[in-house]
Amino acid sequence: MYSIDLNCDLGESFGNYTCGMDQEILPYISSANVACGFHASDPVVMEQTVREAKANRVRVGAHPGFPDLVGFGRRAMQLSPNEITASIIYQIGALKGFCDANQVKLQHVKPHGALYNMAVKDLSIAKAICEGIAAVDDKLILLAPGNSQMVSAAKALGLSTANEVFADRAYEEDGSLVSRKKPGAMITDEEEAITRVLQMIQKGTVTSITGKEIEVQADSVCVHGDSPAALSFVRRIRSALMEEGILIVPLGQKVLTSI
Amino acid sequence: MYSIDLNCDLGESFGNYTCGMDQEILPYISSANVACGFHASDPVVMEQTVREAKANRVRVGAHPGFPDLVGFGRRAMQLSPNEITASIIYQIGALKGFCDANQVKLQHVKPHGALYNMAVKDLSIAKAICEGIAAVDDKLILLAPGNSQMVSAAKALGLSTANEVFADRAYEEDGSLVSRKKPGAMITDEEEAITRVLQMIQKGTVTSITGKEIEVQADSVCVHGDSPAALSFVRRIRSALMEEGILIVPLGQKVLTSI
Amino acid sequence: MYSIDLNCDLGESFGNYTCGMDQEILPYISSANVACGFHASDPVVMEQTVREAKANRVRVGAHPGFPDLVGFGRRAMQLSPNEITASIIYQIGALKGFCDANQVKLQHVKPHGALYNMAVKDLSIAKAICEGIAAVDDKLILLAPGNSQMVSAAKALGLSTANEVFADRAYEEDGSLVSRKKPGAMITDEEEAITRVLQMIQKGTVTSITGKEIEVQADSVCVHGDSPAALSFVRRIRSALMEEGILIVPLGQKVLTSI
Amino acid sequence: MYSIDLNCDLGESFGNYTCGMDQEILPYISSANVACGFHASDPVVMEQTVREAKANRVRVGAHPGFPDLVGFGRRAMQLSPNEITASIIYQIGALKGFCDANQVKLQHVKPHGALYNMAVKDLSIAKAICEGIAAVDDKLILLAPGNSQMVSAAKALGLSTANEVFADRAYEEDGSLVSRKKPGAMITDEEEAITRVLQMIQKGTVTSITGKEIEVQADSVCVHGDSPAALSFVRRIRSALMEEGILIVPLGQKVLTSI
Repeated sequence: MYSIDLNCDLGESFGNYTCGMDQEILPYISSANVACGFHASDPVVMEQTVREAKANRVRVGAHPGFPDLVGFGRRAMQLSPNEITASIIYQIGALKGFCDANQVKLQHVKPHGALYNMAVKDLSIAKAICEGIAAVDDKLILLAPGNSQMVSAAKALGLSTANEVFADRAYEEDGSLVSRKKPGAMITDEEEAITRVLQMIQKGTVTSITGKEIEVQADSVCVHGDSPAALSFVRRIRSALMEEGILIVPLGQKVLTSI
Repeated sequence: MYSIDLNCDLGESFGNYTCGMDQEILPYISSANVACGFHASDPVVMEQTVREAKANRVRVGAHPGFPDLVGFGRRAMQLSPNEITASIIYQIGALKGFCDANQVKLQHVKPHGALYNMAVKDLSIAKAICEGIAAVDDKLILLAPGNSQMVSAAKALGLSTANEVFADRAYEEDGSLVSRKKPGAMITDEEEAITRVLQMIQKGTVTSITGKEIEVQADSVCVHGDSPAALSFVRRIRSALMEEGILIVPLGQKVLTSI
Repeated sequence: MYSIDLNCDLGESFGNYTCGMDQEILPYISSANVACGFHASDPVVMEQTVREAKANRVRVGAHPGFPDLVGFGRRAMQLSPNEITASIIYQIGALKGFCDANQVKLQHVKPHGALYNMAVKDLSIAKAICEGIAAVDDKLILLAPGNSQMVSAAKALGLSTANEVFADRAYEEDGSLVSRKKPGAMITDEEEAITRVLQMIQKGTVTSITGKEIEVQADSVCVHGDSPAALSFVRRIRSALMEEGILIVPLGQKVLTSI
Repeated sequence: MYSIDLNCDLGESFGNYTCGMDQEILPYISSANVACGFHASDPVVMEQTVREAKANRVRVGAHPGFPDLVGFGRRAMQLSPNEITASIIYQIGALKGFCDANQVKLQHVKPHGALYNMAVKDLSIAKAICEGIAAVDDKLILLAPGNSQMVSAAKALGLSTANEVFADRAYEEDGSLVSRKKPGAMITDEEEAITRVLQMIQKGTVTSITGKEIEVQADSVCVHGDSPAALSFVRRIRSALMEEGILIVPLGQKVLTSI
């Protein structure tokens, strides 16, 4: 029987500023990537997000980013490996505080935004991130794209990894994402997106932008919950998965057992 | 046999800015209060401070403060109890990340600056702080002045407390510190300061500003390490304690055993 | 012929976070209080806000606040007078940069949130604010409640002031606002609110919470634009003013002439 | 008669953190580059720095940087041109506030750290900076290395530029600085450094790292004031200039007249 995790970035509100539709999306996902106060979120938002995730039986992961609140962590920054490792430890630790306070076990770590994009391609950044994760808790799972430098770095350190796939993105023949600057990078048709996700889960393949069918391992599908349209798509993909008998399970449980 | 803890605020540097003489003071103290990034410090500084504390066999405590870097946490801010509790959890969690990374057990929590001063007198703030501490780990020790609202709040929640005394401050008859605005608030004579500390430890009393001898429980003496003069005083007080055969032990070990 | 200014807090978005309905409200007001990056806003938002205000012939004022982004400047902070003066100069200067860039003349200054509330009652804070305003440009108008310490401090320094009144707040007999903690503090009925505003403008009086009619000078009415309901109220009050033949003019033009 | 400006980065303290020896260096320089609160400084420090510069007859320039306090503006960040322009306007405006408050005319702008280094080579960044400067005040002088993209961008916009040279850096044949990663990049011998500066001023040439004598226009020499050794070097270079009869004048006066 097939199973898949649905992950979504949550807890991105900040002080007086509300962002995302966390309460609406929580019933449909299995893993939440919670912002840790560097690119978004604040202590009150983090506490509430962990509490609500628990109430919805959604597993919690850390979503650390660059210290760039005004840029929402989406702007590349050149930090030293030492700075990256320490920033990762700090942010995971802070979120673990709220997990401890809510008797929740921290499940995974997924870097955010520009840090994620840079770590996909840059091994030294990927290593710095994974060393931070392993330093805090080597049972944490790294959530990252299949053939990324992050996965290489995690494996070298003995960290578990979960392969993240995207319903709305095209793939190159080597399994990497087609750059957003190229035509055809985004899958805009919802039916096509859902069909692609089912194929990734059931056949372990995806049709690359060149038309070639390539292998892909799908452990977790990244979904968005920041607009009514995104929310509606999550409902559709969830229905499609259930109709196909595919179990939706948090990635921490995926390999071991199903709910 | 008498014993005492010597605590000092450390890890207050920030990025390019150096503050304090951490490496010089570490050999003389038994407990370090480590800033957590809100009023001072940053992830790289925190990592280094925890590592160096461990190398010097100094126990680590969290030193959470108001989110006011430019004011160094010394300016009163009106946060809601909910905001205080979440800020405490966040900061303790972040420091715990570095403790985990260095296989160090977090020993205590001592609020910083304006937050400390407000919590001494305001029970709702004291409760909000203690609830944050207990939520993360109810084995953490609260380091606070003897007859403060912080101690009351901690006891109500079942938290252990350690009584902090000051070598350089005068006391009122009720055991509270004389306000810095009043004459005689500061003990500027080093000999007198040391004599007072010895009396607090050995006799369990201190002469209040009115001349009356009052009872005081001294678990930990707060020392400073931010100037050559402060460092020199720490050396003197340490020598005086050793001459008297008073053991210097981290507060987490104080009641249980001696080194 | 009567005239009045309608002022509204604008430019409160921050980075990825959108706040307020600036474009919708701009056609209905005559003066914009633009956040300056301490409690809200960022350089890109400030540039856009000044540009759009100009395009709508809305005059621009600075809306400086406490350096507390996560608290949106709504939490009391104890800054020294020197710190307040410097913060005011900094924020006004920053906004003036965007005014210069858009060939717009900065019209006024209205402190924000907790800083505003504290300065209403505390003369030393009010003086520190007014000294900052006067230092940058003594032609700037202070927008503040009639019988506040801010007005006293401004007059002592020779600054022009404009009296701000509130459609949705009850008044004490001494002309101060009824504390939000007291029953009857808020005027929730829209018709009543509009009637009160018309009375303030046309008769120069308002019925205090005790029932006594007191004198009030209304130079500018504070309106909100952060929700569809607030926007709808602005449209209603604007219509009512126009029906009564009351001119809506920016406060900088109010005494001198009408549009 | 030859003349030269000596510029130094000042006002880099922040809150409780002291950085630099501003009071010691001010008597020896003619232009101060004042940090504007993004990578260093705060409103109180900026006010004090402008006031002290004026007292020492030192001209004031803005020293805007990336919004990265913990990284001191030394880490590359990918901001959009729009974000850079707005950040420049904001920071210049903020500093102008303190200039207005002290009846000081803002003389120039010199970007800081990573922003400076990136703008030397990247025309789009250079243009974004210069557009921000011109938007606030097109009489401001850009202080930048001779053959940089910054100078190209400034000239295209009609801004005045002043060529900055470095006593402690080697030059490539094309007049650009030798990368710090290459051997020989730094001139560590003080005598040699002074001789090179005199040659740049008096002969308009410098010996490049390849040994070839190339032309260079020296309007301003960058000096450091952040250590006793740096301070001592400034005194030496000032003495050497005076012995040679070279006038030390602020760059705003340089072309027009001498003091």
